[in-house]
Amino acid sequence: MSVENIYTLRVHIEDTDFTGLVYHANFIKFMERARSEWLNNLGFGLPWQQEQGIGFVIRSIQIDYLKPVYAHEVVEVVTKVKTLRRVSTIFEQHLRSASDSNKIHCKAETNVVCIDRHLQPCALPDPIRYCGEF
Amino acid sequence: MSVENIYTLRVHIEDTDFTGLVYHANFIKFMERARSEWLNNLGFGLPWQQEQGIGFVIRSIQIDYLKPVYAHEVVEVVTKVKTLRRVSTIFEQHLRSASDSNKIHCKAETNVVCIDRHLQPCALPDPIRYCGEF
Amino acid sequence: MSVENIYTLRVHIEDTDFTGLVYHANFIKFMERARSEWLNNLGFGLPWQQEQGIGFVIRSIQIDYLKPVYAHEVVEVVTKVKTLRRVSTIFEQHLRSASDSNKIHCKAETNVVCIDRHLQPCALPDPIRYCGEF
Amino acid sequence: MSVENIYTLRVHIEDTDFTGLVYHANFIKFMERARSEWLNNLGFGLPWQQEQGIGFVIRSIQIDYLKPVYAHEVVEVVTKVKTLRRVSTIFEQHLRSASDSNKIHCKAETNVVCIDRHLQPCALPDPIRYCGEF
Repeated sequence: MSVENIYTLRVHIEDTDFTGLVYHANFIKFMERARSEWLNNLGFGLPWQQEQGIGFVIRSIQIDYLKPVYAHEVVEVVTKVKTLRRVSTIFEQHLRSASDSNKIHCKAETNVVCIDRHLQPCALPDPIRYCGEF
Repeated sequence: MSVENIYTLRVHIEDTDFTGLVYHANFIKFMERARSEWLNNLGFGLPWQQEQGIGFVIRSIQIDYLKPVYAHEVVEVVTKVKTLRRVSTIFEQHLRSASDSNKIHCKAETNVVCIDRHLQPCALPDPIRYCGEF
Repeated sequence: MSVENIYTLRVHIEDTDFTGLVYHANFIKFMERARSEWLNNLGFGLPWQQEQGIGFVIRSIQIDYLKPVYAHEVVEVVTKVKTLRRVSTIFEQHLRSASDSNKIHCKAETNVVCIDRHLQPCALPDPIRYCGEF
Repeated sequence: MSVENIYTLRVHIEDTDFTGLVYHANFIKFMERARSEWLNNLGFGLPWQQEQGIGFVIRSIQIDYLKPVYAHEVVEVVTKVKTLRRVSTIFEQHLRSASDSNKIHCKAETNVVCIDRHLQPCALPDPIRYCGEF
């Protein structure tokens, strides 16, 4: 049973482009912030990762843009783990309006790989893997 | 028969993150720059688009990260049109080392939709569609 | 007597560069977010500005970098108005550690100009000017 | 007698914000790109710096915004060294239109400090200091 994490953020002027809407690449940043904050909150943030000698890289992303987001809107990124493997984790995320949870702005699936100090794939540490949150 | 466009860029410090590598969302920006420059060079840049009352939005992206890129590397984005429909265009792109064209850093497929002034999907103008470059 | 506004933010991976520290230009973004949020909270956000037919542009910034900030640190931007003129406002801001308010990471002074729909300088609307918060 | 370096760049969509103009913090990035490319071209790029065990951090910036820049404009950053000290270098830069060199968009003065591996200020290496280009 997968837990759902909700991360709220305000869209800043820097996130928009000349069309008045959020620039498409910036949604990818919002997704990353949400995953990182989740790990942070569980005690698996960067200091912990550095102690363990691990890090994370992205192997692939599939993202669908459904509705535009405007400057200064408040949105939520909803994150859950779809598949948890030994080395890689597939996150399923969507970004929705904070004031209307039925208004989905985009959806993404991201494959994140655990790596060691030499940038080589390695097993996800047990404390993350078996933390019961994914 | 699809034409291939090559866009060269240097990775700047601003594109990297604390890992020393290019931050993953920034590859999406490089892909956009390459598509935009190509349109520009063909005479279909922003001023032309504004005259026509059209613009472009991204419907979806599938991106695979293969090899990291470091600060100040020079890379090439290779772009071609995979599918040209009435309203949407699917671009196939990859980013490779400028000094070793066999070294592929990432690959992406991007579905771009033509929109009108009301942000509604509309037909790609004929001069683009039949320019013979796609 | 000038009010002090405090805006808290977490530094994200996207804000850092290959040195492991926050990239210097991104502090300018943090300063802008803090000013914008303050205006938002006072009811003078973008929708209100658009109704009034005004906007803001930056005329100048003086920024001093004192101590680096690392990925995922939590910091506070402290903002106050130093000078409130008819058209321009000078904001005095500093960024400090959220866990140690004596640790100042950078200081900035920003001159912001009120503009009308034609991008011409114009008087700051009275509701902002006399809101008693600056 | 100070040499002037010219660095040309195109403004991309990612550099603009909802006003249709380049977001103010991004000019700081353009200035940095220009300085970095200059050092690169003189043979003092990142690999050389890493060999020497040095790096650069920004101590302060003073920037004046004069005229806005729009999406896809081509601009030039003109850079020269104003003051070359043992540890710090003051760069004087301005950004102008590539098609009209009298059209100055912004001006900046940046104090850059040479640091060692421990992030402590150190003397600028002689090959840079006496290269005759500053």
